[in-house]
Amino acid sequence: MIKEAIFHRPTNNYAYAYDKDTLHIMLQTKKDDVTSVSLIYGDPYDWVDEKWQTENKLMTKSGSTSLYDYWTIAVNPEFHRMRYAFECSDSVQTLYYTEGGIFQTPPSEISNYFCFPYLNSIDVFNAPDWVKDVVWYQIFPERFGNGDPSINPEGTLPWGSTDPTPSNFFGGDFQGVIDHLDHLTELGIGGIYFTPIFKAYSNHKYDTIDYMEIDPQFGDKETFRRLVQECHKRGIRVMLDAVFNHSGFYFPAFQDVLKNQENSNYKDWFHLWDFPVETEPKPNYDAFGFVSSMPKLNTENPEVKQYLLDVARYWIEEFDIDGWRLDVANEVDHAFWRDFRRVVKSVKPDAYILGEIWHDSMPWLLGDQFDAVMNYPFTNSAIDFLAKKSIPAQEFADSITKVLHMYPKNVNEVAFNLLDSHDTPRILTLANGNQDRVKLLYLFQLSFIGSPCIYYGDEIGMAGGQDPGCRACMEWNEDKQDRELFNYVKTLLHWRKTEPVFGNHSNFKFIHVDNEKDYVVYEKFNADKRLLFIINNSEEEIEVPSNVFANTPQKEWEIDNGTKKEFVTDSTVTVQPLGYRVFEL
Amino acid sequence: MIKEAIFHRPTNNYAYAYDKDTLHIMLQTKKDDVTSVSLIYGDPYDWVDEKWQTENKLMTKSGSTSLYDYWTIAVNPEFHRMRYAFECSDSVQTLYYTEGGIFQTPPSEISNYFCFPYLNSIDVFNAPDWVKDVVWYQIFPERFGNGDPSINPEGTLPWGSTDPTPSNFFGGDFQGVIDHLDHLTELGIGGIYFTPIFKAYSNHKYDTIDYMEIDPQFGDKETFRRLVQECHKRGIRVMLDAVFNHSGFYFPAFQDVLKNQENSNYKDWFHLWDFPVETEPKPNYDAFGFVSSMPKLNTENPEVKQYLLDVARYWIEEFDIDGWRLDVANEVDHAFWRDFRRVVKSVKPDAYILGEIWHDSMPWLLGDQFDAVMNYPFTNSAIDFLAKKSIPAQEFADSITKVLHMYPKNVNEVAFNLLDSHDTPRILTLANGNQDRVKLLYLFQLSFIGSPCIYYGDEIGMAGGQDPGCRACMEWNEDKQDRELFNYVKTLLHWRKTEPVFGNHSNFKFIHVDNEKDYVVYEKFNADKRLLFIINNSEEEIEVPSNVFANTPQKEWEIDNGTKKEFVTDSTVTVQPLGYRVFEL
Repeated sequence: MIKEAIFHRPTNNYAYAYDKDTLHIMLQTKKDDVTSVSLIYGDPYDWVDEKWQTENKLMTKSGSTSLYDYWTIAVNPEFHRMRYAFECSDSVQTLYYTEGGIFQTPPSEISNYFCFPYLNSIDVFNAPDWVKDVVWYQIFPERFGNGDPSINPEGTLPWGSTDPTPSNFFGGDFQGVIDHLDHLTELGIGGIYFTPIFKAYSNHKYDTIDYMEIDPQFGDKETFRRLVQECHKRGIRVMLDAVFNHSGFYFPAFQDVLKNQENSNYKDWFHLWDFPVETEPKPNYDAFGFVSSMPKLNTENPEVKQYLLDVARYWIEEFDIDGWRLDVANEVDHAFWRDFRRVVKSVKPDAYILGEIWHDSMPWLLGDQFDAVMNYPFTNSAIDFLAKKSIPAQEFADSITKVLHMYPKNVNEVAFNLLDSHDTPRILTLANGNQDRVKLLYLFQLSFIGSPCIYYGDEIGMAGGQDPGCRACMEWNEDKQDRELFNYVKTLLHWRKTEPVFGNHSNFKFIHVDNEKDYVVYEKFNADKRLLFIINNSEEEIEVPSNVFANTPQKEWEIDNGTKKEFVTDSTVTVQPLGYRVFEL
Repeated sequence: MIKEAIFHRPTNNYAYAYDKDTLHIMLQTKKDDVTSVSLIYGDPYDWVDEKWQTENKLMTKSGSTSLYDYWTIAVNPEFHRMRYAFECSDSVQTLYYTEGGIFQTPPSEISNYFCFPYLNSIDVFNAPDWVKDVVWYQIFPERFGNGDPSINPEGTLPWGSTDPTPSNFFGGDFQGVIDHLDHLTELGIGGIYFTPIFKAYSNHKYDTIDYMEIDPQFGDKETFRRLVQECHKRGIRVMLDAVFNHSGFYFPAFQDVLKNQENSNYKDWFHLWDFPVETEPKPNYDAFGFVSSMPKLNTENPEVKQYLLDVARYWIEEFDIDGWRLDVANEVDHAFWRDFRRVVKSVKPDAYILGEIWHDSMPWLLGDQFDAVMNYPFTNSAIDFLAKKSIPAQEFADSITKVLHMYPKNVNEVAFNLLDSHDTPRILTLANGNQDRVKLLYLFQLSFIGSPCIYYGDEIGMAGGQDPGCRACMEWNEDKQDRELFNYVKTLLHWRKTEPVFGNHSNFKFIHVDNEKDYVVYEKFNADKRLLFIINNSEEEIEVPSNVFANTPQKEWEIDNGTKKEFVTDSTVTVQPLGYRVFEL
């Protein structure tokens, strides 16, 4: 046994409260090194005749990568407290892994055992329940629909008349979104994520001038209020984008600094290194990257903090929005986010707080800051495998298994799973125009754990490269839409909504990976049902031996047409090139 | 190379801000598996000609256990942000360990690298500076000095006239402490930790009746105010003990529940399972352990929370105390402790917040809750090796090295390092009455990283077994005091105060461990000086080969008499049975 590869620490993804009565415990071991793991656990105060009372339960191997096996278990300690250790066996020995080290026999001294001292319900990671059942739709407001030409900005071009550039305008606005809400309802969308809507000069509005005002090219506050109301009538939540890491160049406080320098009342609103403040050749102040037009806000300054927290509160209280997506969230201080959560949850306890973080985000997901982050590890793996075919099946399975085990399950259930966005090429373009690959991407995304998001227009087959290409005007001419794709996505959303095991109320596990034939087999399962998905990522037809089924399939789910049929096992199962099959076991 | 044993995650002890400009990074590998590790790092936005600009710096092996090597480095990223990876070499290969996996060559895609997105100074772990230079003295107030017999509780026994029992009283009080402050000043004490002083029936006062009142047997509030003032005049800080996990049985709110049951206004102050509330045979409510007289307080209830936060604020604002020690801190919710910190630091930014936690305490030491915990892993290792001789030298070195690497350095520097307390036998008793062993314990404790604490009376050689034995009356008759021991401890405190490298302003590392001869050699070092300690834990004289010295000793420090002398190296160094030698290299 490779003792040095055994890892557990009672925090983060390794030991956490899943709900007010349930602890989840995970152990990591070297792949194929340990043959079984049991949890030895007991109440720290439960002693009979000076002997500590413990139970012993087998843990489940819930996933494996090329390096590790992950062992998990859920337990419900009666008095909400627990000491525990791991009994690890291989073919030659059994060892006891504890906080105090590794022993040949279970240590008698209770202080050696790991401790989860008390499950206090207020500390349970508590993202809004509704997020688990929502499929999001991301809208870049300048490009979704022009419903009110009277507020077009100067120089607005006819809708879709030309390719998007970093600086052109097509007049998308709130009325345009309201006019097209039926499109979202038909698809089955439960939430809209809007990129910024606040006053700013650019077409993307990430260069905020005033966080308290809507950019007039989108409409006025009354129109926005009506938009939120119309969404809510249709059961659609609304999430806005907050750029709190840095302001825009024309944010009045920064302009005041440029004008009044040392004498500015706003000089402590930023991180200025010296005077005079200069923007060329490089900014002499902290910025996003080294971009002088994006000065980093000093969120440690109580005035700045209060201003931004007032912003957070205002759009919820006044307009009833349902969530905040936080731009460059990882560069803002944790202390700010803790207060942000406090304010947001005090005015709307079930608001969703979503951080933009591209790397390991555990420190923001401990329950005191964000509900979720944008799940780029998921994005990258899915795109590399299913769209670009640039990684082998095993690497795809490894990275997906890793992301599922690097966070608690209640965190994964609300992760924001995107395939693309206004910051990346569109999936059809990433897939080199291949509609079959787009379908595999959607099948995987929409059957996976988390809160998936569709980028506007992808569902009707829009293409587009890296920004600005991916920001084209929404195609509303049905003749130019890929209606077959639309209906496919709509059907997937229906499966997700009607079958808990297909969606977010189940577990996910790869059960077979074939690098050579380039396919993967995964299961989704809960107490009621067990589904098996075969995804053929190759352009050849494949024969999958039926021994990949642990249980005999009873039915096949015909995903495309929304039906199920009886299935009789054969020795192999044929899957079309870039095809898939879904069985109920 | 055992890839599966390589571990790093950008959080906790693995990547943290040491101060507002410095990041500490740590990597864990299998012992003796990797021969060198370098950190590859750069600013995430520093690109020249589409190439990311990085530096490469060797990391230091700062410690090893029987299982692991720990590699550490301090870096100062100019713009307070960093992406990084580890270059790990052994005799046959070099591998690149990143967030995205392990590679044969440094990955070109920056998203693979670990990320410390921004060092915001408000997020730096920020314990009070003074704690680093304090030696504490723990006082159990009923047993330190009876200075005002007029307030003796009924049945008070003559001072020291008999052994302590769970229920007898000797009339220790605040005036008794004031009267004996010179004893502390002479020793060199910088802080007193008082076990509870609030109104309660028992002699230990952990059964709180009123958190806003001092128990009358100790004096009135004016006397307490005078005590704090007298301490402050002598440069001695004062820390009180807060029992917030549970109340005493006679706490009025709990009595109201017992009397009025469902109709009590305080029924939500506790975790009651059903009515009627019963204390026998077992409580039908949450308690400390299953002790019905210690009902767990519902700290999630806003009324309870407010009451306890008012308590926390009151004793600081009104009496200027300098710290809170938090009893059973691990069983109270994290949300409560975050607010507790907010309140305490708002009234006294440099107050010390110390939690009683016996196990891995990382989740409480992230900067948003406690400044420190009671360092029981340190205690257990030191006692088992130096007092009881129940573990071999290597196990001692392993556990001390482990505790130093399981927390950030700025956390270790303020850890509360006790050797014993009112909850354990006294060190002299643990050492089976052997004064030499007590001296080795003190030498190790007082030359170690952290904030050490002396339990009242240990310094003059008091003995005593498990509670109540360890709670005897302080011996004030100098003829019965071990004055030699007192002078030895006093000298150690002087070394600690006058030599930064001896105390808390340096690094600690074992450099040699001998299980057979039962001795250890460790170094303390900073930019100015390097000390080498040899501790002989055997009852035989030992010869230590001089090749354990990496550098040639210049001087020997004669700890006992507070002097240094020239030292000429011989081929071996002799150390007396249970003796020690300290060299300056």
